[in-house]
Amino acid sequence: MADAKQDAEKAHSGLRYADAGVDIDAGNDAVARIGALVKTTRRPEQLDAIGGFAGMFALSKTLEDPVLVSCTDGVGTKLLVAIAANEHATVGIDLVAMSVNDLVVTGAEPLFVLDYIATGALAPSHVEAIVSGVCEGCRQSGAALLGGETAELPGMYADGHYDLAATAVGVVERAKILGPERVAVGDVVLGLASDGLHSNGYSLARKALLEPAYAGLDLGALLPGSDLSVGAALLRPTRIYVKSMRAAFDLDRAPIHAAAHITGGGLLENPPRGLRADQAVSLDLSRVPRDPIFTAIAAQGVSEQEMRRTFNCGVGMLLYVEADRADEVASTLRDLGERVFVLGAVRARGDAAAPQVTFHGE
Amino acid sequence: MADAKQDAEKAHSGLRYADAGVDIDAGNDAVARIGALVKTTRRPEQLDAIGGFAGMFALSKTLEDPVLVSCTDGVGTKLLVAIAANEHATVGIDLVAMSVNDLVVTGAEPLFVLDYIATGALAPSHVEAIVSGVCEGCRQSGAALLGGETAELPGMYADGHYDLAATAVGVVERAKILGPERVAVGDVVLGLASDGLHSNGYSLARKALLEPAYAGLDLGALLPGSDLSVGAALLRPTRIYVKSMRAAFDLDRAPIHAAAHITGGGLLENPPRGLRADQAVSLDLSRVPRDPIFTAIAAQGVSEQEMRRTFNCGVGMLLYVEADRADEVASTLRDLGERVFVLGAVRARGDAAAPQVTFHGE
Repeated sequence: MADAKQDAEKAHSGLRYADAGVDIDAGNDAVARIGALVKTTRRPEQLDAIGGFAGMFALSKTLEDPVLVSCTDGVGTKLLVAIAANEHATVGIDLVAMSVNDLVVTGAEPLFVLDYIATGALAPSHVEAIVSGVCEGCRQSGAALLGGETAELPGMYADGHYDLAATAVGVVERAKILGPERVAVGDVVLGLASDGLHSNGYSLARKALLEPAYAGLDLGALLPGSDLSVGAALLRPTRIYVKSMRAAFDLDRAPIHAAAHITGGGLLENPPRGLRADQAVSLDLSRVPRDPIFTAIAAQGVSEQEMRRTFNCGVGMLLYVEADRADEVASTLRDLGERVFVLGAVRARGDAAAPQVTFHGE
Repeated sequence: MADAKQDAEKAHSGLRYADAGVDIDAGNDAVARIGALVKTTRRPEQLDAIGGFAGMFALSKTLEDPVLVSCTDGVGTKLLVAIAANEHATVGIDLVAMSVNDLVVTGAEPLFVLDYIATGALAPSHVEAIVSGVCEGCRQSGAALLGGETAELPGMYADGHYDLAATAVGVVERAKILGPERVAVGDVVLGLASDGLHSNGYSLARKALLEPAYAGLDLGALLPGSDLSVGAALLRPTRIYVKSMRAAFDLDRAPIHAAAHITGGGLLENPPRGLRADQAVSLDLSRVPRDPIFTAIAAQGVSEQEMRRTFNCGVGMLLYVEADRADEVASTLRDLGERVFVLGAVRARGDAAAPQVTFHGE
């Protein structure tokens, strides 16, 4: 059992941490590479955390009744596309997007993000690419990258594989929290255009588009009906709605009552999260241009119902808006680069057993 | 490419999300199981987050100048021991411990935790066990489990494997932040006993104890010098120091100046994180009983220097304490269940090239 203890090399150096597959120098190299990137997300509220056990962020003293808002998310199997394409920056944007888009629907301002990157063996250049994307996502949402963990876990991940998670923390004045209790019958439902699949439904999308039994496309092939390759279309970063939505939240007398991020569960499960149980909506998707990636997936035999419960189908965010101010809100959002669709209006749900979301013409 | 589209089954049901390896019903089952556990960590500041896109937590209005403190960590390859032993609750405690022990050294109170659990295929009973441990860790540290993500990632993890990450968020009055700038020459260094390895150095520990070329022990075998099995010794949960340390922080006129969590980097890299650059300590480890697990690892040819830079070697937390109040602090900590060792005193570091940490008798 102890034969190896007789090895000349071991007799010389003993058993070291690096022998166990953990390369501290590679870890330090990655830390140096990401330091400069992280500085681009710095906010004035950050304190220098001497010793660096934890990140520190001073809360504004002008808030009257601050409520902290926080959520955690990952990128899912979109990572397997990034790994296959050897393109690691865009998933960093996705990682931040999934959390801050969940956070902003409460009305909160994202303050900071912490990330977790886990691999079997650290490739500093991959870590640098991922963190560059995380920092891009932070800048797009105005959040500081306050901390994170880069974990090297020999034996846990296949070669070249990694997983990512992030947590976003924000703050909202209690009196300004958005939600179903503000929503009234007659409120207009605005949809904000998505940038493709975002980060949901990739297990199904990959199966439909890439597996030989279905479309069997190569990542480098042109996506039917698109000028993007399949890989590029699959890796489009999740759109971050924070800055445009927060501008619209801040309009006089708060015309936005609630919002729903169209994330896992798609257009079936998410719209009700912004509604009261006695309210329903009928969405007119005929106004939403369908990205070629959705068409290509549906062509593999995915029913419209399954599409809607898996994907955003072109709508990344829903807003429930005071009816007579829908034009003003839409115009504010368009000025900030969003494509906005009027999808319907909130109505009373007469029958508690009736679905809360239906679709025009069905 | 589209042969499968002719399948009778597919013609019947179409391609569904579950066909792609994502089992939404298993996910919902896991969610139901963990709901009751999570309630045991609830704090009165939590708001019901209708829609549930993000967790919400009201900050105390009595804070004068609140600074948020946050950190993220994982459990590392200790998970591989948990998976091999099919024992999934203790790593949930570790997960919380690693973050809240990092957080408390700033002087902060942990408020809430969010967790991330990623697997290839959801085993609801494993998720339940993990979350039961996470909730135990939250209760031990007084933090609410405010949110989390359970991600099923087919193709990302080997069968039965999973990864965990958690983020802790706390708050501290700016005037009460601990750190090196408070530490004075003459301060006494108190060490708090660890409960074995905690969650660091497992790649080396597993190699030394389990691999046939080294000790080659089975998880079920008795650890030499111990009444625990190797598996039980390797899976001892990381000790959570939050409640005892916070009681000692609150002693009149704040006798604790700084603290250092003995985490990755062990007794070489962590003690300096609580010191100014012009300060040094010499630690007397002869006062620290060495757990049999450290002895068994060292016996496989790991040098004392490598032990100290990889493991906590019996000391899970260091406190830098006003000299004439060290007895009072130690007694407060002992009353709350800690074993406390006087390890040395802070001295001036005459030579900026000299190491900041040395050891008595060397």
